[in-house]
Amino acid sequence: MKNFTFLLLSLIISYSSAAQSAFMKDSTMVSAIHYEIMTNSEAYENLRYLCKEIGHRLAGSEGADRAIEWGTATLDAYKPDRVFLMPVEVPHWTRGRMEYGYFDNEGKRNAVALTALGGSVGTDDKELTAEVVMVKSFEELNSLGKDKIKGKIVFFNKAMDPFLINTGAAYGNTYPIRGKGPSEAARYGAVGCIIRSLTMADDKYPHTGGTQYNDSLPKIPAAALSSVDAQALADALKTNPHLKFTYHLSAQAFPRKQQANVIAEIKGSEFPDEYIVVGGHLDSWDIGEGAHDDGAGIVQSIEVIRAMKAMGYKPKRTIRAVLFINEEFGNDGGETYARVVKEKGEKHIAAIETDMGGFTPQGFGTDVTDAQFDRINSWLPVLEHFNITRLRRGGSGVDIAPLKNGSVALFGLWVDGNRYFDYHHSGNDVFENVNKRELDLGAAALASLIYLIDEHGFE
Amino acid sequence: MKNFTFLLLSLIISYSSAAQSAFMKDSTMVSAIHYEIMTNSEAYENLRYLCKEIGHRLAGSEGADRAIEWGTATLDAYKPDRVFLMPVEVPHWTRGRMEYGYFDNEGKRNAVALTALGGSVGTDDKELTAEVVMVKSFEELNSLGKDKIKGKIVFFNKAMDPFLINTGAAYGNTYPIRGKGPSEAARYGAVGCIIRSLTMADDKYPHTGGTQYNDSLPKIPAAALSSVDAQALADALKTNPHLKFTYHLSAQAFPRKQQANVIAEIKGSEFPDEYIVVGGHLDSWDIGEGAHDDGAGIVQSIEVIRAMKAMGYKPKRTIRAVLFINEEFGNDGGETYARVVKEKGEKHIAAIETDMGGFTPQGFGTDVTDAQFDRINSWLPVLEHFNITRLRRGGSGVDIAPLKNGSVALFGLWVDGNRYFDYHHSGNDVFENVNKRELDLGAAALASLIYLIDEHGFE
Repeated sequence: MKNFTFLLLSLIISYSSAAQSAFMKDSTMVSAIHYEIMTNSEAYENLRYLCKEIGHRLAGSEGADRAIEWGTATLDAYKPDRVFLMPVEVPHWTRGRMEYGYFDNEGKRNAVALTALGGSVGTDDKELTAEVVMVKSFEELNSLGKDKIKGKIVFFNKAMDPFLINTGAAYGNTYPIRGKGPSEAARYGAVGCIIRSLTMADDKYPHTGGTQYNDSLPKIPAAALSSVDAQALADALKTNPHLKFTYHLSAQAFPRKQQANVIAEIKGSEFPDEYIVVGGHLDSWDIGEGAHDDGAGIVQSIEVIRAMKAMGYKPKRTIRAVLFINEEFGNDGGETYARVVKEKGEKHIAAIETDMGGFTPQGFGTDVTDAQFDRINSWLPVLEHFNITRLRRGGSGVDIAPLKNGSVALFGLWVDGNRYFDYHHSGNDVFENVNKRELDLGAAALASLIYLIDEHGFE
Repeated sequence: MKNFTFLLLSLIISYSSAAQSAFMKDSTMVSAIHYEIMTNSEAYENLRYLCKEIGHRLAGSEGADRAIEWGTATLDAYKPDRVFLMPVEVPHWTRGRMEYGYFDNEGKRNAVALTALGGSVGTDDKELTAEVVMVKSFEELNSLGKDKIKGKIVFFNKAMDPFLINTGAAYGNTYPIRGKGPSEAARYGAVGCIIRSLTMADDKYPHTGGTQYNDSLPKIPAAALSSVDAQALADALKTNPHLKFTYHLSAQAFPRKQQANVIAEIKGSEFPDEYIVVGGHLDSWDIGEGAHDDGAGIVQSIEVIRAMKAMGYKPKRTIRAVLFINEEFGNDGGETYARVVKEKGEKHIAAIETDMGGFTPQGFGTDVTDAQFDRINSWLPVLEHFNITRLRRGGSGVDIAPLKNGSVALFGLWVDGNRYFDYHHSGNDVFENVNKRELDLGAAALASLIYLIDEHGFE
């Protein structure tokens, strides 16, 4: 294929006008990239290894240490110009061995599937039991006030809105409950906080995710219930409003420790001091396997390096794959990367994040100038055959957001998001729920955009 | 929602120009349809019942009888103006109880996962054993000729091409091997024919599907191997080209019998003699549960009726949901429906098929006149918010194809096809592999298109 591509390219260039020849060259390269990845990709096997042999890998954990080692070795094997580690300080929190919950209703004990929210305190080595106050919003919480809440467990039972076509928007609307709910409940004297998992699925998987305590308020144990259990609890509260809920969390915080971003580089031949970054986050939550979030983005970023090397592609600019550490629990990897880039004065012209799951790609989210937007739009026709047809404002990525400086173009791979929140942060985010073909198409979309940026630049 | 919609509509209509008000009315209705279906759909629960309580339902089988009964009762419960059966004569074939295969290599017996192709003859109550000749194409078969093939089992080992972005095209390229391969092998004296399953997945599921014998040639037993077993056999043949393959099929044909299309109707208020059809096929292959193929299309078609009744929508034209019988094994349901329509002189202005699986909808395939195409294109902006953005030429559906008469507009719901052939015609086509949200979005897209056609017509 390599020789075929270059032969075709030289033919095209000899016989066409400049504009035609640019379009034809781009089409041929994008097609060659897709051919390489759709037929030879190693992304799926890499994902299997990451999920099954390493497993989940919360920043600060030994799983994350092993993932950093694996990422380094895997990138090394594809022989980019260099692979190096960038030290990053990360938090260290564990959920411990014991987490369970139940409520008694009509003489029957109902065990619920629950999981501590990331960063939660534990229940002091014992069960916490109290009456439940169910609310759907902060407004409802505020209107109840201290009288009704003091000494109780606040249960935020708000489902993601299925009518919102963009599931990310539905998540965004519900997310404040997970992030701020526990401290808002504590403000009124609650002794505990449980929430309905942020998911579109009706099932028994609880979904974790970070919560952020307000340091001026008491820290109360916080957990998410599966959507099915949240519904069961809500139903039971209808007939038994004074029902008590019991849970036990062993979560615990430890001193911060050092881990690292893993970075691979293919040096640019014309503008080696201009960087184009593609990346995802190597850490995951500590349940499931972090297959979609963000094992998929990690193996796609690695696949970009593999494919470029396999094709003998020599970029004009320096291409970096960055496996960021700790997106989930404070964005230390992204913050550190941006700080080092600034200190070293490395000129980044674009950064692309893939952290929406290994689903069918549709286009790109952007955080770019108007001029950049128009320029990228003018490249899109070469991607139409590959069903990459859409460009939107917003939606780049958490890891790369700190790079924002008014000139670097930020992108997020935009995929079909319908299934993402069914798996996200849960025990159901496993390798088996990622489709090889969809994963590979995403990698090809990323490599194609990098090629276009590298080829044409923004000036 | 119902009252809200009509209130909004009257407001819009009072304050807008005619063109604006048409656009606003359409947007509001399409939004109301999505709201109804995304929050109240019963499609997923109906699919669970069809898959789990009835199961697979090959035309001619008792499963299909039960499915016809279930379809009638389910539609009846939503109270359309009428539900009726249209008798259809269908074939009756069973794979029987015994099907297995194996090959011996390097002193080890390798059992393979295999399934008779639909319509295949059996192996006469005994094992069939012969040397294997592997080919990738009809050209290769022809070049080998009688000398090399007589008395052997021909093994067509052609994978679907992963580089083709449209998986339907990759299927179409490989399909002739399943349809004609057995008879082409028999032409050169082969005693049996096995093929690599038509799938993009590397797994142990064999995929069945109809084969069409050439009546002027001997009928030889035909089966599909899982992709993993096909690869294992190909590998073994490299070191052991005289390897023998053994298989046993109990497949058998019986006399044709009578089953039925199930039809539900909501009468039009202005043009009751103009029909708009939405449908899929109620039969499935006789392995797995026919969840995507075409349980999804069936419950989506039923959901259109449920949603319209629940919304109090009074169509101008008569809307029909048709659950066609026997798409898989000769298209008797579709042929019969078109014949009856012609006999009765029923004016069909549009028919929409959903038979590409319950995946995220993207747009519609069309088999329409240029004028119709332009008209439909002009409606699309109201669907953009719902990610229904694409219209293509071709790709309507097998069941509705016989209706084609130069004026009726034919459509197929166009969905993300990346995973379809992983499940299609296999034991893996089960309820668990259908996502509720994706299924519901498809039903909403269908109902929206029906509304637009009903509202604006084609004249």
